[in-house]
Amino acid sequence: MPDSRPRNDNFLRALLKKPVERTPIWLMRQAGRYLPEYCATRQRAGDFLSLCKSPDLACEVTLQPLARYDLDAAILFSDILTVPDAMGLGLYFETGEGPRFQRPLREESAINRLLAPDPRERLGYVLDAVRTIRKALDNAVPLIGFSGSPYTLACYMVEGGGSRDFRHIKTMLYARPDLLHRILDVTTEAVIAYLNAQIECGAQAVMIFDTWGGSLADAAYAEFSLAKLQNIVAGLHKTWEGEKIPSIIFTKGGGLWLEKIAASGCDGVGLDWNVNIGDARRRVGDKVALQGNLDPNVLFAPPETIKAEAIKVLTAFGVSGPGSTGHVFNLGHGISQFTPPEHVEALVETVHNFRF
Amino acid sequence: MPDSRPRNDNFLRALLKKPVERTPIWLMRQAGRYLPEYCATRQRAGDFLSLCKSPDLACEVTLQPLARYDLDAAILFSDILTVPDAMGLGLYFETGEGPRFQRPLREESAINRLLAPDPRERLGYVLDAVRTIRKALDNAVPLIGFSGSPYTLACYMVEGGGSRDFRHIKTMLYARPDLLHRILDVTTEAVIAYLNAQIECGAQAVMIFDTWGGSLADAAYAEFSLAKLQNIVAGLHKTWEGEKIPSIIFTKGGGLWLEKIAASGCDGVGLDWNVNIGDARRRVGDKVALQGNLDPNVLFAPPETIKAEAIKVLTAFGVSGPGSTGHVFNLGHGISQFTPPEHVEALVETVHNFRF
Repeated sequence: MPDSRPRNDNFLRALLKKPVERTPIWLMRQAGRYLPEYCATRQRAGDFLSLCKSPDLACEVTLQPLARYDLDAAILFSDILTVPDAMGLGLYFETGEGPRFQRPLREESAINRLLAPDPRERLGYVLDAVRTIRKALDNAVPLIGFSGSPYTLACYMVEGGGSRDFRHIKTMLYARPDLLHRILDVTTEAVIAYLNAQIECGAQAVMIFDTWGGSLADAAYAEFSLAKLQNIVAGLHKTWEGEKIPSIIFTKGGGLWLEKIAASGCDGVGLDWNVNIGDARRRVGDKVALQGNLDPNVLFAPPETIKAEAIKVLTAFGVSGPGSTGHVFNLGHGISQFTPPEHVEALVETVHNFRF
Repeated sequence: MPDSRPRNDNFLRALLKKPVERTPIWLMRQAGRYLPEYCATRQRAGDFLSLCKSPDLACEVTLQPLARYDLDAAILFSDILTVPDAMGLGLYFETGEGPRFQRPLREESAINRLLAPDPRERLGYVLDAVRTIRKALDNAVPLIGFSGSPYTLACYMVEGGGSRDFRHIKTMLYARPDLLHRILDVTTEAVIAYLNAQIECGAQAVMIFDTWGGSLADAAYAEFSLAKLQNIVAGLHKTWEGEKIPSIIFTKGGGLWLEKIAASGCDGVGLDWNVNIGDARRRVGDKVALQGNLDPNVLFAPPETIKAEAIKVLTAFGVSGPGSTGHVFNLGHGISQFTPPEHVEALVETVHNFRF
């Protein structure tokens, strides 16, 4: 495994609140369907899961956005549901329907049998992808590893797929909180092992996607999502081979809880586009770095509007340019498949050229 | 039109921050599919729109939850999309797909032709329903009139139906804000006329449902949703036939913006279940009443849990029982069609029996 710092380490420095040369930028889902070269590789792979499970193809698509744009980080190409798949739930994708599990987790007996998988045994394809990507990146930019949050994974595990109302997991949460806690605790253990294995194989930062934490009531978020995120952060490698490994927590729809998320022990907090990033900074102070938070739909507008809206985010954050600290520019959610690729160029240039 | 106060006016008193005998409760979508008698009436009507367009059947379903439960308000049974339908967009319902418009509003020429309909000409069936319901209620409890918010209506008008990403309206918002403002301003004029006509026909309070305002970025919410809501509140009848007519604004996902919503001039602010109602009260002070905010999914749990969770909301608000002021109990969103009807009974009793 390569062990030197990336030549462009602005992303890591921003997360650790050290001075940077420019505000770093990467985009959630940057290796995705808006890129024709991604669609071509995916077609060659046959389907989405085969793409995730081939380390070479996962590496290929991970690098595609970096070949097009001057991005400051790569993110492992994978799916957030690899962990429950490794737990035996049977992940599959229904065309146009998103992810599904063959065996949703609702019976007490099945919940009691749930075990955290050893990532080296059951998720070797992901770890191979991490190693392959690190090698291919050749220390140009850092590689981000990631996982879904325990509550988000549990949503899919209990519902059996995506959901509009989360009726089954919410029923369990209110009627049998003990069962949900068991699912979440096993999943927390699994996520810690999974992220630490990614770090050991070369991930230089990790991000936890809490996509559905924002569907919870205030007290339920603290108990069923944030508490598990805190346990994960506490269990992560803080350094590996002499380098600090920053962690980012992103609860979509979590704008009301930023102070609590910032107190979880993570280094960076992801922000969706509902939040004003300047208000967020005033609320959390200098405790953590902030990552975000342009509305992904801005990328449908002409380049001049993209520039103006990106500058609003940079200005709201309040510090940028040489010596700035603590802001990783990103979208507030994954980039849309309908984004014109040339619009991303305008965004990246604007962020890099911005001087406060 | 009857002109005396309802015998149970706790709902109106709470909104006006006057002393009440008990914390009033009603439920968003209380006349809905969780009630077998509603499903029977809907079947008799043939389809959902025919049910909305028949004043007698709309009255029948409006009263059904009041016959079962000791609720403190009735809400007009109607659809939030009657206004754009009256503008000529051609509302229809695709089975299992939700509302659709035959003529989505995307062309500049069509947007320029958009006109606010006269509610007495184009929405007479709603006004007839209001009159019929008021008469049938016989002053037992107040009747709430309602409308969708301009931004929420525009979402359906521009997208042509529901949407997961609001791609078309967001593109318009960022690329052609002038066009979106025109849609919103015409719709604002239409909503003011519509709600005032409901008041003139007997609605004793009005609520504006901003279902999709929470999908907006911070600055966009202020410009494209809240500013129009303020215009509506400013244009509403404040009193009618000597009685104050309170107004409620509910932006789902608007928890970050409560101070701004509370400053809009409305009497009550609706809260979804993400917010802690005690925090909300500390943030907005005594400026407005608060309506909410139990997670509707709590109603899937056994009655003991429902009681405990309802008491958490009542306790968090901080004042209840005789003399309490400013809290209208409700769910944080519409009641689910999968709710066991007997669970609602447990909720209503708990709220009414609670003493702080």
